[in-house]
Amino acid sequence: MDNILDQYKAVRKLTEDICAPLKKEDYVVQPVVDVSPPKWHLGHTAWFFETFVLKPSLPGYREFDPQYNFVFNSYYETVGARVVRTDRGNLSRPDVDDVYRYRSHVDQGMTRLLETTELDAALSEIITLGLNHEQQHQELLYTDIKYILGHNPLLPAYTRQGVSYQQHDATGAYLTMKEGIYEIGFEGTGFCFDNELGRHKVYLHEFNISKSLVTNREYLEFVEEGGYRDFRYWHAEGWDWVKSKGSAAPLYWHEVDGKWMHYTLSGLQEVQPAAPVCHISYFEAAAFAAWKGMRLPTEAEWEAAADQFNWGERWEWTNSAYLPYPGYKRAAGAVGEYNGKFMVNQMVLRGASVATSAGHSRKSYRNFFHPQHQWQFSGIRLAE
Amino acid sequence: MDNILDQYKAVRKLTEDICAPLKKEDYVVQPVVDVSPPKWHLGHTAWFFETFVLKPSLPGYREFDPQYNFVFNSYYETVGARVVRTDRGNLSRPDVDDVYRYRSHVDQGMTRLLETTELDAALSEIITLGLNHEQQHQELLYTDIKYILGHNPLLPAYTRQGVSYQQHDATGAYLTMKEGIYEIGFEGTGFCFDNELGRHKVYLHEFNISKSLVTNREYLEFVEEGGYRDFRYWHAEGWDWVKSKGSAAPLYWHEVDGKWMHYTLSGLQEVQPAAPVCHISYFEAAAFAAWKGMRLPTEAEWEAAADQFNWGERWEWTNSAYLPYPGYKRAAGAVGEYNGKFMVNQMVLRGASVATSAGHSRKSYRNFFHPQHQWQFSGIRLAE
Amino acid sequence: MDNILDQYKAVRKLTEDICAPLKKEDYVVQPVVDVSPPKWHLGHTAWFFETFVLKPSLPGYREFDPQYNFVFNSYYETVGARVVRTDRGNLSRPDVDDVYRYRSHVDQGMTRLLETTELDAALSEIITLGLNHEQQHQELLYTDIKYILGHNPLLPAYTRQGVSYQQHDATGAYLTMKEGIYEIGFEGTGFCFDNELGRHKVYLHEFNISKSLVTNREYLEFVEEGGYRDFRYWHAEGWDWVKSKGSAAPLYWHEVDGKWMHYTLSGLQEVQPAAPVCHISYFEAAAFAAWKGMRLPTEAEWEAAADQFNWGERWEWTNSAYLPYPGYKRAAGAVGEYNGKFMVNQMVLRGASVATSAGHSRKSYRNFFHPQHQWQFSGIRLAE
Amino acid sequence: MDNILDQYKAVRKLTEDICAPLKKEDYVVQPVVDVSPPKWHLGHTAWFFETFVLKPSLPGYREFDPQYNFVFNSYYETVGARVVRTDRGNLSRPDVDDVYRYRSHVDQGMTRLLETTELDAALSEIITLGLNHEQQHQELLYTDIKYILGHNPLLPAYTRQGVSYQQHDATGAYLTMKEGIYEIGFEGTGFCFDNELGRHKVYLHEFNISKSLVTNREYLEFVEEGGYRDFRYWHAEGWDWVKSKGSAAPLYWHEVDGKWMHYTLSGLQEVQPAAPVCHISYFEAAAFAAWKGMRLPTEAEWEAAADQFNWGERWEWTNSAYLPYPGYKRAAGAVGEYNGKFMVNQMVLRGASVATSAGHSRKSYRNFFHPQHQWQFSGIRLAE
Repeated sequence: MDNILDQYKAVRKLTEDICAPLKKEDYVVQPVVDVSPPKWHLGHTAWFFETFVLKPSLPGYREFDPQYNFVFNSYYETVGARVVRTDRGNLSRPDVDDVYRYRSHVDQGMTRLLETTELDAALSEIITLGLNHEQQHQELLYTDIKYILGHNPLLPAYTRQGVSYQQHDATGAYLTMKEGIYEIGFEGTGFCFDNELGRHKVYLHEFNISKSLVTNREYLEFVEEGGYRDFRYWHAEGWDWVKSKGSAAPLYWHEVDGKWMHYTLSGLQEVQPAAPVCHISYFEAAAFAAWKGMRLPTEAEWEAAADQFNWGERWEWTNSAYLPYPGYKRAAGAVGEYNGKFMVNQMVLRGASVATSAGHSRKSYRNFFHPQHQWQFSGIRLAE
Repeated sequence: MDNILDQYKAVRKLTEDICAPLKKEDYVVQPVVDVSPPKWHLGHTAWFFETFVLKPSLPGYREFDPQYNFVFNSYYETVGARVVRTDRGNLSRPDVDDVYRYRSHVDQGMTRLLETTELDAALSEIITLGLNHEQQHQELLYTDIKYILGHNPLLPAYTRQGVSYQQHDATGAYLTMKEGIYEIGFEGTGFCFDNELGRHKVYLHEFNISKSLVTNREYLEFVEEGGYRDFRYWHAEGWDWVKSKGSAAPLYWHEVDGKWMHYTLSGLQEVQPAAPVCHISYFEAAAFAAWKGMRLPTEAEWEAAADQFNWGERWEWTNSAYLPYPGYKRAAGAVGEYNGKFMVNQMVLRGASVATSAGHSRKSYRNFFHPQHQWQFSGIRLAE
Repeated sequence: MDNILDQYKAVRKLTEDICAPLKKEDYVVQPVVDVSPPKWHLGHTAWFFETFVLKPSLPGYREFDPQYNFVFNSYYETVGARVVRTDRGNLSRPDVDDVYRYRSHVDQGMTRLLETTELDAALSEIITLGLNHEQQHQELLYTDIKYILGHNPLLPAYTRQGVSYQQHDATGAYLTMKEGIYEIGFEGTGFCFDNELGRHKVYLHEFNISKSLVTNREYLEFVEEGGYRDFRYWHAEGWDWVKSKGSAAPLYWHEVDGKWMHYTLSGLQEVQPAAPVCHISYFEAAAFAAWKGMRLPTEAEWEAAADQFNWGERWEWTNSAYLPYPGYKRAAGAVGEYNGKFMVNQMVLRGASVATSAGHSRKSYRNFFHPQHQWQFSGIRLAE
Repeated sequence: MDNILDQYKAVRKLTEDICAPLKKEDYVVQPVVDVSPPKWHLGHTAWFFETFVLKPSLPGYREFDPQYNFVFNSYYETVGARVVRTDRGNLSRPDVDDVYRYRSHVDQGMTRLLETTELDAALSEIITLGLNHEQQHQELLYTDIKYILGHNPLLPAYTRQGVSYQQHDATGAYLTMKEGIYEIGFEGTGFCFDNELGRHKVYLHEFNISKSLVTNREYLEFVEEGGYRDFRYWHAEGWDWVKSKGSAAPLYWHEVDGKWMHYTLSGLQEVQPAAPVCHISYFEAAAFAAWKGMRLPTEAEWEAAADQFNWGERWEWTNSAYLPYPGYKRAAGAVGEYNGKFMVNQMVLRGASVATSAGHSRKSYRNFFHPQHQWQFSGIRLAE
C-alpha cells in the first residue's frame, strides 16, 4: 500500500476487526499484570497518534479528553494526576463506547492531517512508527484476549470460525552453516525499529540449525518422560519457576480424562501432534533443548540462516539476551524510550507468529520477553 | 408486605434497580479483594435461591447452568472444577446479559414455587434467609459500586440525582445509663440471623453514650491537629496500618487546592461539616475516641441504650470483637457457615446506614468487619 | 522475698541461669519475627531498668552506651538512628560478652540505687514493673530458645537434665457453675498489670468447665480422625492458616517412621499420651473444641471458676478477645504503651505454663497472643 | 607453589586467616539472602573436599557427620532431610568450634590423601577445582563480612589495621582498538572454569576503552547532579530498583552532616575522591555510563583490550549477559552444575578486585551477578 492514508485506515480497521467478536465485558479485565485489557490497547494506540502526531502537528486539533493522557499513557509516571492513581485492570471508565469515540476522533484528525499536509521526513517517520506500534498491539490483542478467555472457567471461544494453524511435521532436516563472518541488522530502506539498526559483522563458528520447528509430538515426549521433574535440564531460575508455578506442560494445555487438550481461540481442542509447539517460555525452550542434547540458536545464527528455512508460525526463542547492537543510540525524546530501556533481563525472539500482522515482521526484527513468559505464540527451533 | 411472593419480587427488583445506572463495564471490575464486581452480587444472590430452594424443593426445576455453581458460590472451595480455577475480578463471562437471564430464570422458578406450594416452616425460613441475604448484598452493591467508581481517575458519578444525606449537627448531648443487668439479643417473632439469638443477660457498669454521631467538623479537627501523625492515639496494628497505607483522612477524602472534597455517589463534592463522618475504619474510630479522651461503646452498651437515640445513618463501630453469644449454635449444613466461621479478628458494628435496605436492620443486628475496613458507610458514636 | 534488692538479684540471676546452657551462637539468631534472639532479651530487660529507673533516678549514673538505646528498645521507632536501621536478627554486635557487661553495669547501678535510696511509691512501682517485665521475658527466653533449637536440623537439646512435665490423665470431670453475677479483675494489694485493673461485675449464664486439660491422647484422636482436613471445625481464617501452612499437628510434632515424636527442650522424644497437649494455636484449640461439640471458656468464666481446678501447666486459650475492662485507662508516658495498644486482633490466654517463672502469674492475669501463634506453651480446657 | 599439598595448606589457611578477626557471633548471621554466614562458607568449602574428594577417593575415610551433608550443601534440594528443613541464617548449630573441627578433620584426610596417593588426572582436577572454589569463597567472605558488619548500627570495624586501597586518579586516557577478528576464551595449560573454555573468534568493531576506572570524584558528580532522580539514564528495571530501594548513592555510602562517608572494613571513613568507585550495581554502572554519553564495554571488548590497561582493583561490569560460549558443554555430574545453570538474567563482570585472592583471576575469567547486586567490590570502566 503506497498511500499512507490508506495504510493508516487499513491498520486502524484491522485493530477494530480483531476486537469485533468481543463482548463489552471482555474489554475490561486484566487477569495478570502482563496482559492489558483490550480497551486499553484500543485507547493507547489512539493516544500515540494524538500525543506524538496530532497535538504537535495538526493546527487546531482539539484534544479529546485531557484526562485520557494518564489513563492511556504506558510510558510515564502519571504526572499531573491530582486525585487518584490508576490501575489498568480496574478501570470501568472510560467505557468501550467512549474509547471507540476517542479512536474515531483521532481518526478524523489523522485523516484531516494526511489529506491536507505535506509530510516532512520527521512526521512521516513518527506516523510510520505509530502504525508499527499499533501492529505490535494487534498481536498483543490476540495474546491478551486468548489469556482472558482461556483463564475463564467457561473457556469461551473467541471465534467459532476457527483460526487456521498450518499442519506440518518435523522433517528432522538440519542446515549446516559454515564458520565465518556474517552481517546482521537491518538493511534496506523501509521501516525498522531502532534496535535493529547498526548493521554489523559477527563471527560465527560452524553450526547446524533445524529447518523446522519442534512439534507438539516431540514436546509431549519431553513432558511424558518427566522433563518437568528433572532439574538437570533447567536453569536454576527455570527450576524455581517450575516449582513455584507447578508447571508441567505448556500454557493452555490441560490433561482431561487422560487426553491432552489445549485452549485455542476456537475453544478447547485436542492437541494436534504435528503442529509446532506453542506458548512456551524461554525456560521451557532451553530445558527441552538440553533434554535433546542440543541448544537454542543465537540471534545472529538465526538471522544468518533465516533465508534458508521457513519461519513465521511461532516466535522463536533464541539464546541471546536482548542487548544493544554496536553503535546503538536511543532516539531523542519520549520515542527513545521505545526499546533501549528494556535491554536487560530479557531474551530475544526471532521470526513472527500466526498472530503477527501480515508484513509487520522481517528477518532482522528483534522481539523480546522475559524468560518466564508463555502467553505469546512462542515456539522452539533447535541448533547445535 | 405480608405476601412472601410480593416480598420476593420487591427485594429482587430493588437489587436490579440499584444496578440500573451502571454501564456494562462497571459490572465487571474488582479493584480490591473485599469489593466484588456487581455482576457477581447479581449472580450470587440468584445462586442462593437456586441452590438452597429451587434445586431441593421445586420438582422439575432445571438448573440454569451447572458451571455457574462454582462461578457464583462464595462459600466452598471450587470442587469439581476440573480445568481452571476462577477469580471473581477476572471474569468477563458469564456476561451481564447472561446474568440477568440467570436471575430471570430463577425468578420464574421461585414464582412457580411460591404460587403452587404450601411452604413448610423450613422452606419458609430459608426463603426469608435468602431475602435477607440479598438485602445484605444490596448494601454491598452500594459500597462496592462506590469503591469502583470512586477509585476511577475520572471520578464518574453513579447518579446525577443526588443521594440525600440527612443534615444534622452534633448536639453534644449524652445519655447516662445506670449500672445493672440488661438483656440483649433478638426478641420477638420476625426474622433474625443466628448470631443475634440467645437473648441473655449482661451486667453493665454506668456509662455515658452520645445521642449523636461524630460529624465531619469534629473529625476534621482530629485530622488537622495531627491525629494521623501521633502514634499515641492508635492501636499498634492501627499505627502500622496508617504508616503502610499512608492514611491521613477518611476514605474518599481528597484535599484539592486546600479544600477538603470527598467522592460521593453523585461525584466529587465538598465535605459537609454537619454531616456524620463516614468511611472510617475501626482503627480510625478508636484513635479519634482516644484523642477525645473517650472510647467507643461495647455492643451490649449500644443495644441497651439504642431506644434512646436515633440510629441508622452510619454503621457504628463498637469496641466489641465479633464472638458468639452464650449458647450460640451454628445451624446445620451449608447455611451454618453463614456467621460462625467469621467469629475471629473482626469487630462488631451496630445500627444501619443510609445504604442499608429499609427494614433490613434492627436493634439486635450484629454487623462485623475487620478493623482496617473503610469502604462501608461506617461512623462513630462516642461513650465514656 | 520481702527485700526488693534481694528480689531484684534473684530475678536477674534467673534470667542468666536460663541462658547458661546456650552457646554464643544460640544467642544471635531470629528464625521468625515473633522469636527474638536471647541476646536481645538480655539487653532489652537491662535497657528497661537503665531507661526508666537509672537515668531518671540515680544521680551520677553513666549510660553504658548511648547506641544501645535503639538496639534494645522494643517500643519506639528508632529515633536518632542517623546511619543505618537495625534488625534484631541480623545483629552480631553488641556481642554476648558486651551484653553481659551491660547487664552487670546496670546491676551495679541498681544495687547502688537500692542500697542508698529511700524509694518513693512511683520508683518502687516502676522497679516492680521492671521485675515483672523481666519475668515475662524469662518465659519468652524458654519459648524462643525452644523455637531456635527446635528448628535446627540437628535438633540439639537445650539441656540433657530433662525438663520435668507432670503426668496426668484426663479425668473427664466437669464443674458446673451457676448463673449469676460474678466479679473479675485484680483484687488485693500486690503487683498487677494495668489490664487486670478495674475489678468489675459480669453476668454469667450456667456453664460446665473441665477440671483438666486436654491431653495428647485426646488431641491425637483429632489429628488421626482428619481434624486438620475438615473445614467444618475451623474458623474461615483458621482454615486458610491450615492450608497455607500445611499444618497437620501441633508445633514440634514430627511423624517419624509411623510414630509421633515431638521436640522438647531435652531433644526429640516420643509424645506422651497422658501429658496435656502443648504448642497449640487458638485456631487449633477452637477447632478441637468444635470437633468435640464443645467450646472454649470465656475469660470471665475461666476466672470465676479458677479456684476450683488446677491450672499452671499450659496457657489456656479462652474464647475472649483481648479488650479493655470497663474503666480501663492507659498509664501515662511510655509505660502506658505496655498493654493498651495491643487490644485488637488478639485472644486472651489464662493461667500459666511450666515455663512461667514461679510466682509470676495469678488468677486475674491476662496473657494475649494472635490466634495463629503456637510457640507458647499453650493448651486447651473445654467448656460447654 | 608447585606442591599441591602446600597449595592446599596455603589456601585453607588463608580462609581461616580471613575469619580470624571475627567474633563468634559474626559467624552466624545472614542479613539478606545473597550473603551467607561466614560459618557456612567455612563448612561448605570443607564439605566440597569431603564430598567430591575424600568420600570417593580416600580409602577408610570416616565422614565427619552425615547431617552436615544437607547443612553445607549449596547445590541440591535437601534430600534425605526427614524432620526439618534448614535455612542458612537461622542455624546456631553446628557451632563455630564444630565447624573448625570439621575443617581440621577434612584437612587431616586431605593431608593423608595427598601424602600417600599418586593423583590421577581426574583427582588432580577436582582438587584444583576445590581450591579455586575455596578462593571464590574467600572473596565472598570479605564481601559478606563487610555486609554483616556494615549493616550493623554500631558499624564495627573488621580490622583496625586498615585495608589498603591504591590511590589513583582518572587519567582520562582512552585506548582505541581496531575493528577486526579477535580471539577470546581461556588459553594455556593451567586451571580455568568450564565457562571460559572454547576459545573462539569474535568480530569487534572499532571502539575506545578507558585506561582507568571511574573514580569516586566522577561518580559523586553523577550523584550530586541528580543522576538517581532522572529516569532517562536508567533501564526500566533499574528505575524500578532505584524507586523501590530508595537508592541515592553506592552501597555503604552515608551522607553524614553534609559530608560523604562510606563504611569500609576499617570502619566509617570519608569517601576518597581519587579511589575507584566501588559497590555499584550493573544498573548504576549503566546509568552512569548513559549520563556520560558513553557505554560499558562488552566482555569480548574487555578481554581483547585487557593486556593494555591495569585491572584488578574492581570487578568491572560489562554490557554482556552471562551466556555460554560457542560449543560450551557442562561437565558431567554434580560439578556440571557449577556454571551452566546460572546462564540467564545475570551480567558478566571481568577483572578482579582488591578482595580477590592473589592469583585467582585471569584475563579470561567470567564472573557474574544479577544486575541489582552491589555487595561485590564492583566498579566501572567506560567504553564508546
